[in-house]
Amino acid sequence: MDSPASNQDYVEDLVKKARAASVRLATLPTLVKDQALLAMAEGLLAKSEEILSANERDLETFGTRREQEAMADRLRLTPERIAEMADGIREIVKLPDPVGETIKLWTRPNGMKVGRVRVPIGVIGIIYESRPNVTADSAALCLKSGNACILRGGSEAIHSNTAIAAALAEAAEKAGVPPGGISFIERSDREVVLALLKQDRDVDLIIPRGGESLMQTVTEQSMIPVIKHDKGICHVYVDADADPAMAERICLNAKVQRPSTCNAMETLLVHQTVARTWLPELVRKLSEAKVDVRGCPKTCQLSPEAKPASPEDYGREFLALILAVKVVKSMEEAMEHIARYGSRHTEAIVTNDYARALRFLREVDASAVMVNASTRLNDGYQFGLGAEIGISTTRIHARGPMGLEELTCSKFIVLGSGQIRE
Amino acid sequence: MDSPASNQDYVEDLVKKARAASVRLATLPTLVKDQALLAMAEGLLAKSEEILSANERDLETFGTRREQEAMADRLRLTPERIAEMADGIREIVKLPDPVGETIKLWTRPNGMKVGRVRVPIGVIGIIYESRPNVTADSAALCLKSGNACILRGGSEAIHSNTAIAAALAEAAEKAGVPPGGISFIERSDREVVLALLKQDRDVDLIIPRGGESLMQTVTEQSMIPVIKHDKGICHVYVDADADPAMAERICLNAKVQRPSTCNAMETLLVHQTVARTWLPELVRKLSEAKVDVRGCPKTCQLSPEAKPASPEDYGREFLALILAVKVVKSMEEAMEHIARYGSRHTEAIVTNDYARALRFLREVDASAVMVNASTRLNDGYQFGLGAEIGISTTRIHARGPMGLEELTCSKFIVLGSGQIRE
Repeated sequence: MDSPASNQDYVEDLVKKARAASVRLATLPTLVKDQALLAMAEGLLAKSEEILSANERDLETFGTRREQEAMADRLRLTPERIAEMADGIREIVKLPDPVGETIKLWTRPNGMKVGRVRVPIGVIGIIYESRPNVTADSAALCLKSGNACILRGGSEAIHSNTAIAAALAEAAEKAGVPPGGISFIERSDREVVLALLKQDRDVDLIIPRGGESLMQTVTEQSMIPVIKHDKGICHVYVDADADPAMAERICLNAKVQRPSTCNAMETLLVHQTVARTWLPELVRKLSEAKVDVRGCPKTCQLSPEAKPASPEDYGREFLALILAVKVVKSMEEAMEHIARYGSRHTEAIVTNDYARALRFLREVDASAVMVNASTRLNDGYQFGLGAEIGISTTRIHARGPMGLEELTCSKFIVLGSGQIRE
Repeated sequence: MDSPASNQDYVEDLVKKARAASVRLATLPTLVKDQALLAMAEGLLAKSEEILSANERDLETFGTRREQEAMADRLRLTPERIAEMADGIREIVKLPDPVGETIKLWTRPNGMKVGRVRVPIGVIGIIYESRPNVTADSAALCLKSGNACILRGGSEAIHSNTAIAAALAEAAEKAGVPPGGISFIERSDREVVLALLKQDRDVDLIIPRGGESLMQTVTEQSMIPVIKHDKGICHVYVDADADPAMAERICLNAKVQRPSTCNAMETLLVHQTVARTWLPELVRKLSEAKVDVRGCPKTCQLSPEAKPASPEDYGREFLALILAVKVVKSMEEAMEHIARYGSRHTEAIVTNDYARALRFLREVDASAVMVNASTRLNDGYQFGLGAEIGISTTRIHARGPMGLEELTCSKFIVLGSGQIRE
């Protein structure tokens, strides 16, 4: 009887297969990739029963502690949620294939033509702690962009993810995707992740999506380039010249529409000249929407519903119906607060002043800087990029929503007629 | 009397100043940057004497061991070489400022405008083991692209680099560049590099340029994103349908014009049907040009000047007048050889066959893939990108020659009129 492979051997075997698959995936015709995606969507539906019963096992292990109800809800799969995953994959079929696109082609004085062509990155490792639908989304986006993917989900969803990944990989292979093109790490040992992060010869990129401890591990241990999907400490600054009704609509949306996301507002900054007239009514409406408002002394003085904020409430990612509020003397003070406490994810100003709008856009540093729009709009679909693998907070390669194009890199091509270097 | 700061404190102080400077550099007007660049060029010339005497100290320490004559020559500065550095900086003044460029701006169905704007990366650490001119080139490119730079040169050039960096930083500051915008690590302890690689809060990118041991250290230790400028094991494949004269010209240029560079040819692959008629004459000319030709059995049989290659000669970066040669049965065999032994830097085919040219371009994976041109042309100037900081072998962000644009990233901007997420 064979003894099980060590975690090191297990990972090395996985990445070697992924590398081999990536070479074939790089030139796989769009038609084959699209047919495989459709087969993957079908495969998920066909394997619904297995996936739901695997999910049942995860939910049992997870337990029913009251404080974790929200997390259990994120983990829970239903026939409807599986159908949504399948629909998500079908949406990716409709997006244009980025691979092979000539981004630019120009002619040099010596007559040679130089161009840039989009090519897949190669092998991408995705380490996540999110809903099981990330397994399907990531596999589909990587396949369409010609990359092999190695997926590692959270241990709490290990059975669900294993069942989903098996359904996807089986359908993909039958439709012509090379074996190893979509692989899932079925072992939940931390050692496996550490071993994966050292495979810099065979893995080209690591995308971590999750909490602080995952980010820290990846930052410290990875020998592979990393594009982080890190936390969002997003601000809305309501300027002296803001339209009051618009400011209210944007603030309510940014906080309440889906507070658990990285692009939800965590701190509201309000210019002192509008605080007295505008803030009390907003705080009342936020409270009605069950938001726990934690304000600076001025805010609390103006709004009976607000409780005093502690210093730690600024710069904190609540991911919940909690909001820190601060009245500021000027846009400069607001921008300094953002530079000090923000996480450079999404920052918005509400103003009708032209010069201040342009200055905010120019000087504030974040993956998306907005004028008169809700921070919740920093999203691949909303921006028109199509499906996204997440929102990058890394400053190189891709910043902000990462769609199919951001899952590719480029190579130079040269069409010569005998040119040499003089 | 103050005791000297620990290496850790020294690095932390340096990166904090660089971070502060980077915020101001990000919005520094082009005119100020260009005037500072001109002042830096002047500063180098004005401080020629100090720089030359510092260089004298490096050369004395380096010694005059015969086998290191080539390295000593790379290290040696002359008034002419200082003038070339100054000219290099003035060339960068002429290039367009990439910062602030709106790459794209589109309108979404809800009426909001979404755009991508080029912004500096932030703080860039450059670790190199090359000629002292890299100090001037890197500082100038980083300044023009709005980045703060932290430079760390090789210990053998420590005095030369310190003098050059001091001249540059002094001139830049006088012309309005914030202090800390250009900084140079004057300590040569390895510990300083290790401390720098952990500063992921204040340094946004590390660019290593150098040998295998530097690459390994950076890969293993860096918590900061890395764009490598790694070795080039470049091939030229001479196809059955190559123009013989063109093939000869390209091969001689790719090997002989400057063999110490990363884009020089290290292995020549020749299709068997042209080997007999074409190869002997090429090997003769290579030998005349003092190239040590190491061939496969077939090559040696055809060319008396060739010595037998050892298996290690394939996939080796000679950086010298040495060439491995192999006769292959087909383009497939050549592409397999390249995939196995190449470093994905620069690969070229010489052919007049249309289909094979396109297939080679599509299937070969390298930062630059060329048809009928010398590998030596994979270069920022030759491609028309202007000055380059080097040739990236990393697959994300920038691949191939890195010019000013590749030293920037982007942010999304949103011009809204009250849009919220429905």
